[in-house]
Amino acid sequence: MNDKRTELEELGEFGLIEKLTQKFELNNSSSIHGVGDDCAVIEAGDKVKLVSTDMLIEGVHFNLMYVPLKHLGFKAVASNISDICAMNGTAEQITVSIAVSNRFPLEALEELYDGIHIACETYKVDLVGGDTTSSLSGLMISITAIGVADKGDVVYRNGAKEYDLLVATGDLGGAYLGLQVLEREKEVYNANPNIQPDLDGHDYIIQRQLKPEARVDVVKYLSELNVKPTSMIDISDGLASEIMHICKQSKVGCHIYDEKIPIDAKTSMTALDFNLDPSICALNGGEDYELLFTVSQDDFDKIKGNPHMTVIGHMTNEKDGIYFIDKNGSAIELAAQGWNHFKDRE
Amino acid sequence: MNDKRTELEELGEFGLIEKLTQKFELNNSSSIHGVGDDCAVIEAGDKVKLVSTDMLIEGVHFNLMYVPLKHLGFKAVASNISDICAMNGTAEQITVSIAVSNRFPLEALEELYDGIHIACETYKVDLVGGDTTSSLSGLMISITAIGVADKGDVVYRNGAKEYDLLVATGDLGGAYLGLQVLEREKEVYNANPNIQPDLDGHDYIIQRQLKPEARVDVVKYLSELNVKPTSMIDISDGLASEIMHICKQSKVGCHIYDEKIPIDAKTSMTALDFNLDPSICALNGGEDYELLFTVSQDDFDKIKGNPHMTVIGHMTNEKDGIYFIDKNGSAIELAAQGWNHFKDRE
Repeated sequence: MNDKRTELEELGEFGLIEKLTQKFELNNSSSIHGVGDDCAVIEAGDKVKLVSTDMLIEGVHFNLMYVPLKHLGFKAVASNISDICAMNGTAEQITVSIAVSNRFPLEALEELYDGIHIACETYKVDLVGGDTTSSLSGLMISITAIGVADKGDVVYRNGAKEYDLLVATGDLGGAYLGLQVLEREKEVYNANPNIQPDLDGHDYIIQRQLKPEARVDVVKYLSELNVKPTSMIDISDGLASEIMHICKQSKVGCHIYDEKIPIDAKTSMTALDFNLDPSICALNGGEDYELLFTVSQDDFDKIKGNPHMTVIGHMTNEKDGIYFIDKNGSAIELAAQGWNHFKDRE
Repeated sequence: MNDKRTELEELGEFGLIEKLTQKFELNNSSSIHGVGDDCAVIEAGDKVKLVSTDMLIEGVHFNLMYVPLKHLGFKAVASNISDICAMNGTAEQITVSIAVSNRFPLEALEELYDGIHIACETYKVDLVGGDTTSSLSGLMISITAIGVADKGDVVYRNGAKEYDLLVATGDLGGAYLGLQVLEREKEVYNANPNIQPDLDGHDYIIQRQLKPEARVDVVKYLSELNVKPTSMIDISDGLASEIMHICKQSKVGCHIYDEKIPIDAKTSMTALDFNLDPSICALNGGEDYELLFTVSQDDFDKIKGNPHMTVIGHMTNEKDGIYFIDKNGSAIELAAQGWNHFKDRE
């Protein structure tokens, strides 16, 4: 090893991935698409298989003090299914690997697998494999989801065109504010374990945080509406970060409009409680697992008024940059914040 | 969660997997084979995809004090390719997920990925995805390998028949003794860091431990010889454990002969140095990544004298049990030891 030492936090997650994978090439003809999208795409007869994988580490991605193991199991699966949705595919299989310390009894792992089982039933996927081992401390979960799509149906991040409309599903920012509420109650509990947590009125955003749903329904709606997005990504790291991915890979710019961003009233109210701007929570908070996609203007009539889809902006020329237009009409250049695991969580 | 507490070490790895996965069923018609073999088998047009996944945890599966990161990267890939070989398939893609603490600089991860890259070139597989995140301590690696096979070529663990021959590839026990040498030199170094490690004459077994090869060549030879094994597994947890898997799943018994077990002279010599029986090292030591398979007696002429394959026993009726016949002709009933991560490494 040479003597140079470059700290990981200087690079961030995406910079690190780029550095580590830059010299890898795709040589097998069955490898249609590799690193850099929500899923890898692999030839499989007249269809393609979609493969997505995520790793979840206790203390980094979840805190068992307020995340029930059953919810954790469900969410770990749902977040991978979400990646398959983001390619416009249908998930069919998962593998689940866990590493656990002997702090966990069998009964705890059964809770985790109960949640995984519920997710398998909800999303009609089969658990087909995995690995089970011990860890020196804590719980780690690695899930791989495998989906299928017709070759011509796959939607990548790189197909957005100038003038396309930018569409978000559902509502945003809720999962982030659910986390803020859970963190606040944890602090209260730590200060005085006799005080009961006050989660009243926060059911919606806590559900958004603890039990997010993958938008398999949206993939179905798009097919029924006969709309093939020009690009798509799931909103796991925050709207801003996902917009940057689409713009970078599609080589386009974007205008998004503050007033168009779909935010639930309960999310807004909680944001104000925390002295946060709800739009900033939607832009930079993660884990909503909604879909973000672009469609040709010709498809506008098909999605107009759809309760699951909101047009939040439009794509521009790459040279025009990526702008957030606030409620006063001011244009603010967007910088991705998203989750940088190497910076935020040491 | 209920109040019962069952310790994981009471169950062992395979018992735990059985407990956790028992209520999962395969519902999608594309899920041909799920948990319980070296790979999952998934329909893909007129072929099938094979999927295998492994998780490696620092301090449990590897010790960075004597395992160079480049070797670790290579071995992590090779061990997954070995699972694809064990299904008689060809690996084509991998995903690599890592969690690392900020103790690791970029340069260390580049070493790791150099090893992964060498493995990709050696085995002609493409890196198509993964996840990169931080950990609170240590390094964790989760790799998923994806392979392909013609539907009729897939070999499972459950097809061995009474009177079939049991065949091992290469030689066994070397990886385990390589680990013993490395552990011994680590102790010496810990006691006195000025003493240089004495690895002279141990190149072969250390190579078996640090840089094992997946037997993709054997899969090719079998095809050229027109031999389709009736069952197959890779030898990752020790010969005894793998024999038990084949016997249990195929519902057969087995006689294996001490004098037939292929053991390299350097492995034997080192075993004697450590006051260990070389055959016991082959039976219970892990990580050789050779293949163990059964063939019909009709195929004996095709493999007879093949330098890569050794007949070490034959399958019997299930009721006859699983026996190790020692050099004096005594029959000893076999009990799998293998690696029980939950017992050995707390």
